[in-house]
Amino acid sequence: MTAPMFERVALIGFGLIGSSLAHVLRRDQSARVIVACARTQATLDTVKRLGLADEFTLDPAVAARGADLVVIAAPHSAYREIAARIESVLAPGAILTDVGSVKGAAVRDLQPHVPPGVHLIPGHPVAGTEYSGPEAGFAEMFAGRWCILTPVPGTDAAALDRITRLWLSAGMKVEVMSADHHDMVLAMTSHLPHLIAYTIVGTATDLGESLKSEIIKFSAGGFRDFTRIASSDPVMWRDVFLSNREAVLEILQRFTEDLTALQRAIRWGEGATLEDRFARTRAIRRSIIEANQA
Amino acid sequence: MTAPMFERVALIGFGLIGSSLAHVLRRDQSARVIVACARTQATLDTVKRLGLADEFTLDPAVAARGADLVVIAAPHSAYREIAARIESVLAPGAILTDVGSVKGAAVRDLQPHVPPGVHLIPGHPVAGTEYSGPEAGFAEMFAGRWCILTPVPGTDAAALDRITRLWLSAGMKVEVMSADHHDMVLAMTSHLPHLIAYTIVGTATDLGESLKSEIIKFSAGGFRDFTRIASSDPVMWRDVFLSNREAVLEILQRFTEDLTALQRAIRWGEGATLEDRFARTRAIRRSIIEANQA
Repeated sequence: MTAPMFERVALIGFGLIGSSLAHVLRRDQSARVIVACARTQATLDTVKRLGLADEFTLDPAVAARGADLVVIAAPHSAYREIAARIESVLAPGAILTDVGSVKGAAVRDLQPHVPPGVHLIPGHPVAGTEYSGPEAGFAEMFAGRWCILTPVPGTDAAALDRITRLWLSAGMKVEVMSADHHDMVLAMTSHLPHLIAYTIVGTATDLGESLKSEIIKFSAGGFRDFTRIASSDPVMWRDVFLSNREAVLEILQRFTEDLTALQRAIRWGEGATLEDRFARTRAIRRSIIEANQA
Repeated sequence: MTAPMFERVALIGFGLIGSSLAHVLRRDQSARVIVACARTQATLDTVKRLGLADEFTLDPAVAARGADLVVIAAPHSAYREIAARIESVLAPGAILTDVGSVKGAAVRDLQPHVPPGVHLIPGHPVAGTEYSGPEAGFAEMFAGRWCILTPVPGTDAAALDRITRLWLSAGMKVEVMSADHHDMVLAMTSHLPHLIAYTIVGTATDLGESLKSEIIKFSAGGFRDFTRIASSDPVMWRDVFLSNREAVLEILQRFTEDLTALQRAIRWGEGATLEDRFARTRAIRRSIIEANQA
């Protein structure tokens, strides 16, 4: 039997992503020891019951001590505090990574707390479901999806290779890019769609009780797809918008201009404009199907 | 063997809905004769190959002559011309219905052409996929979904009962409401979601070629759900927005206000506002799941 990829993996945060990663580590026996760190004892009890870790602690410093891989899988607003807590216990040669949806702010908040000899390699596995919490995780969630790594300039190649192999073992394809570029691409493909979905479901909710039962009944016409997206974890998404503010506002502005143009076409009965805009969006759907991301 | 529900059914328009209904009629032997009417010979050839009709014509009047059920399943912009063409051949006692997504305009465009003794009962089976055309249809598409009928005041009860039984046989649940009420509910649950989806996919497309391949790669973060909705038939959707203009603009205005409020919260870093808005949308998702419409 070959040695496991990691001796001691500290998973700080045990929601959908953290627990799914634990399933992968367990399945592949990629970690000799998995340490679970969560904000509440209830979460730790659940992780224990699920058999997803070997050690359990509420203290990030206890979890990170002696770990050769530390994965922050908590909402972004917790990053600074976690980083400050683990700073003094991170071992030379250890890899510190995260799984958050915003990477520029991850570098900004974590980097000052990374001691010399520790490798900070922010990461973002672009995968998920609308469910949250440690019981929502499953090993196959990552399969066939992309993981984006945003190493800072000068990152150790061997460390980058180790974290790459971890995500490959989860079935992901791995791409490396700058944190800023990541944040712009994801603002378009993920953050704006979630903001829109939350908004439209909120608009429907505000129509009042008398219409609500009908909206639920007839949701198959398109609305229900938005409700699925809009049932993602509120705290995580609050943090995404606060930490990727610039890119989200930039993409949102473009979206609003485009929507206003369509609104005007509807008001003035400009059918040709509408048909033209609607027809051109089909090509991108075909490309997604061809890229096996549908 | 019991008699079929209808002697002669004219299906005018053979896209996703028309062909799916033909599958239902065939499966249940609910029509002694199915007449297919389409705009092009190519569509008729496809319908013939699929065995979905017994007679074939490019002329709505030929199709409707002697039919006890006439179903208009064409884009809304064709309604007036079709109605004018079939007006003189509609038999007393016949039922004229449609399957369009906008009902106020359907009544407005069809009613003037309905001879005395013919029963106009507009309908909207709220079901579909992102695919179009006669080959996209399948009998099970309607199963478990709602069909909304919007009979005008004074509609013959027996005729309403017959068209109700047709959709029940397709596995649908049937609800009756006014055309105006239908148009407001559907503006929220279907028309606005499609407009938003078309817009966001268009915004992404305009980001240019360099970003496009990355947007396709990382579409799993939410964007791909929008591309599916935005690949629906452009002509049909152009007609929906033109014919349900008032209700769409009203709902769109509310949506824009809500989006602007969230934009402001992002700009000013108001995390509590964001989390509060995001948390309240989960309840409606649970209701949809409980209503078996997920």
